[in-house]
Amino acid sequence: MPHLHMEYTANLPELNADVALMRLNNALVASGQFGAEFDIKARAVKVETFRVGTALGERAFVHVKLALLSGRSPEIKKQLSESLLAVVQDVCEWPAGVEVQLCVEILDIDRESYTKTAIGH
Amino acid sequence: MPHLHMEYTANLPELNADVALMRLNNALVASGQFGAEFDIKARAVKVETFRVGTALGERAFVHVKLALLSGRSPEIKKQLSESLLAVVQDVCEWPAGVEVQLCVEILDIDRESYTKTAIGH
Amino acid sequence: MPHLHMEYTANLPELNADVALMRLNNALVASGQFGAEFDIKARAVKVETFRVGTALGERAFVHVKLALLSGRSPEIKKQLSESLLAVVQDVCEWPAGVEVQLCVEILDIDRESYTKTAIGH
Repeated sequence: MPHLHMEYTANLPELNADVALMRLNNALVASGQFGAEFDIKARAVKVETFRVGTALGERAFVHVKLALLSGRSPEIKKQLSESLLAVVQDVCEWPAGVEVQLCVEILDIDRESYTKTAIGH
Repeated sequence: MPHLHMEYTANLPELNADVALMRLNNALVASGQFGAEFDIKARAVKVETFRVGTALGERAFVHVKLALLSGRSPEIKKQLSESLLAVVQDVCEWPAGVEVQLCVEILDIDRESYTKTAIGH
Repeated sequence: MPHLHMEYTANLPELNADVALMRLNNALVASGQFGAEFDIKARAVKVETFRVGTALGERAFVHVKLALLSGRSPEIKKQLSESLLAVVQDVCEWPAGVEVQLCVEILDIDRESYTKTAIGH
């Protein structure tokens, strides 16, 4: 906890996913909501097969999901979502002529049944 | 919103994921539940490593997840699920001798903490 | 139902995802919680782009998500989570010098709107 997922469509060649994850993780650390930077587990997946809507025209999206152990307030969740969206907006030059949608979603992880362990730490 | 994910196992060579996404998006537009076709963001992922159950025998699955901003009624969700399942059933010739499971799941997106923006729109 | 997802970072060369899925499915069958082995649909995804925290140093993770039709008790969910974590811990030799985090998360599938069908069964 937390787990961050970033999906991005393959028609965003300027998006460096490694850099994006580092900046997103930095934003999470800076939020002060997480005890240990070590706990933040982020991954990015490039989506090769996608479709935005039904009309023609070049479209793209970046969708970030942040999953948190249940119990945080709506205000905190909203703040985290806005912080991550600000990072995504700023993460690259967006291609001209492409309609790009950026979204951030916050999910709860069921705290009672979440189990974890660390090896070699 | 909405976000549609389609996972399909790699042993379904007749499944054209681009066509499937277009038809699924068309079904969502036709449902009348969404204000703008532009909002529908769909992606498909071919699953190369999978296991259905524990017995031997060729098995496959297609799993569609539709994530909606929270607040829709159970009846609407059920209707959307059934519409998408009907699309999936009809999307290709299913291979003989393979047990194929098709599933549609509807998820809520926490409305309060969801943030988004559009670039170049 | 149930659906099992396993994500694992690409720096875990000893992790055989096929073997892991078979063992995880066997653990689910052995739990006695599921009527038919056929219903268990598991997949694994190797994550090539990831970032754990913000510090330097080699880090890795395995994240298993088990999605169940809503209605099971917290105790059952916790037991399933612990069973799966025990399988993951034992699934390979973990690399020396790498901090590996293993996590298991249990999710509810909205029962009312879940639809499925089987072909060729």
